[in-house]
Amino acid sequence: MVQVDKLYQEFEKDALAKLLGIRIIDIQPGYARTYLEVNSNLVNALGMTHGSTVFALVDMALAAASNSRDKVAVAQNVSIHFMKATHPGDQLYATATEENLTNRTGIYRIVVENEAGEKIAVATGTAYRTDSSH
Amino acid sequence: MVQVDKLYQEFEKDALAKLLGIRIIDIQPGYARTYLEVNSNLVNALGMTHGSTVFALVDMALAAASNSRDKVAVAQNVSIHFMKATHPGDQLYATATEENLTNRTGIYRIVVENEAGEKIAVATGTAYRTDSSH
Amino acid sequence: MVQVDKLYQEFEKDALAKLLGIRIIDIQPGYARTYLEVNSNLVNALGMTHGSTVFALVDMALAAASNSRDKVAVAQNVSIHFMKATHPGDQLYATATEENLTNRTGIYRIVVENEAGEKIAVATGTAYRTDSSH
Amino acid sequence: MVQVDKLYQEFEKDALAKLLGIRIIDIQPGYARTYLEVNSNLVNALGMTHGSTVFALVDMALAAASNSRDKVAVAQNVSIHFMKATHPGDQLYATATEENLTNRTGIYRIVVENEAGEKIAVATGTAYRTDSSH
Repeated sequence: MVQVDKLYQEFEKDALAKLLGIRIIDIQPGYARTYLEVNSNLVNALGMTHGSTVFALVDMALAAASNSRDKVAVAQNVSIHFMKATHPGDQLYATATEENLTNRTGIYRIVVENEAGEKIAVATGTAYRTDSSH
Repeated sequence: MVQVDKLYQEFEKDALAKLLGIRIIDIQPGYARTYLEVNSNLVNALGMTHGSTVFALVDMALAAASNSRDKVAVAQNVSIHFMKATHPGDQLYATATEENLTNRTGIYRIVVENEAGEKIAVATGTAYRTDSSH
Repeated sequence: MVQVDKLYQEFEKDALAKLLGIRIIDIQPGYARTYLEVNSNLVNALGMTHGSTVFALVDMALAAASNSRDKVAVAQNVSIHFMKATHPGDQLYATATEENLTNRTGIYRIVVENEAGEKIAVATGTAYRTDSSH
Repeated sequence: MVQVDKLYQEFEKDALAKLLGIRIIDIQPGYARTYLEVNSNLVNALGMTHGSTVFALVDMALAAASNSRDKVAVAQNVSIHFMKATHPGDQLYATATEENLTNRTGIYRIVVENEAGEKIAVATGTAYRTDSSH
């Protein structure tokens, strides 16, 4: 496993996460958790949290969890299901857990919940594990 | 079909699209095209265009295409496959075409290409068609 | 909820499940479990359990779980990730649990395990809930 | 590319395809086409072609197309969207085309049509390319 401190430092360079206000709040081997407080810049035309905002929260959890192992990993595909609308002021958490890990592939389930623990979205992501180490 | 002018006006209110610099450049019945020039705010920790940036471009094309019909439509699920990395300065286009349309559901294929016509990502999105009209 | 006895009787008419030897072994509201013993008719060219055999086990669990509610439901889309190969003689179980239920849509997570409890595949399925009752 | 004759011979050993009556009718580099005439063994409890029958047709097209290249390839994940019901007597064709090919991964789009050219289902499949040659 990589040094978690170093991994946090790497993700500090993620410009989009900074722009959106997404924070990685936990990394364990094969596990990660991200957080976002929705604001008025992150909504769609109907004033609800944008699906792409929710996806970004999921994507960061996938990135952190899949890179918590020995190798640099990149997202290959993600399938996301949206379940419940949220709004500015809502606090969202995405939790990524490892479904499976092989030499080349990691599969992760990511669940997004609001501050009340209601399910907002679920996703499955596949990460390709490169030959590079962190 | 909705009035296209009115639809463009509605999407002007999409705050996240504005934040990221995504523009809707074409809407036809069951079809839409979006555009983005990648900049240094839209990258991941490796300096490449963030997967979530690509997703947002896809998502806006899905929103525009699925709302080009008579009813207000919302994304239900999206499956995205990433194929090729891009970088700041690259120009990306997402094109959404209708695979199928029923009373309650629209299915769309979305292809993302760069300025050279190389395939960057493909996605399939399902939109739920509500009872509301535009 | 439907009468479970009546639901089992309906699924008795599923000709493909019979051909493959898939049995529904549990139905609860928003939950179902299916079972299959792999035999030599159900393999691919490499002699391993066919991906389509695993999918069928998943699909039957999705059908049973989504029809355990008041309305007739039909599969709209399924995303499946294959994790581990199995072979003739292996016993497979698929368990479908409800992620979300709205008036029109049910989302289910389906996990396939072998007799040792090892994960073979995971899937997410969306069912469309029609106006018909059972 | 593999010798196509040899590839057809390999797929002759696919027991499930034989059980269901699925035939591979074309293989080109990065391309394949499969065929099935629906019969009364391949339906669900409602008497319509089983979703798993349609999936199997898709899966065989994915297998043939992804193995048309130099390496042995195995399905990693498949996302399928069902669009239109069919019935015994209907003739179904699945066409797999290559979206992308890297050293380790092939991505394929698969479209299922009936004899009238109507779209029955669409799918996207990812194949993992092993180190083995055919």
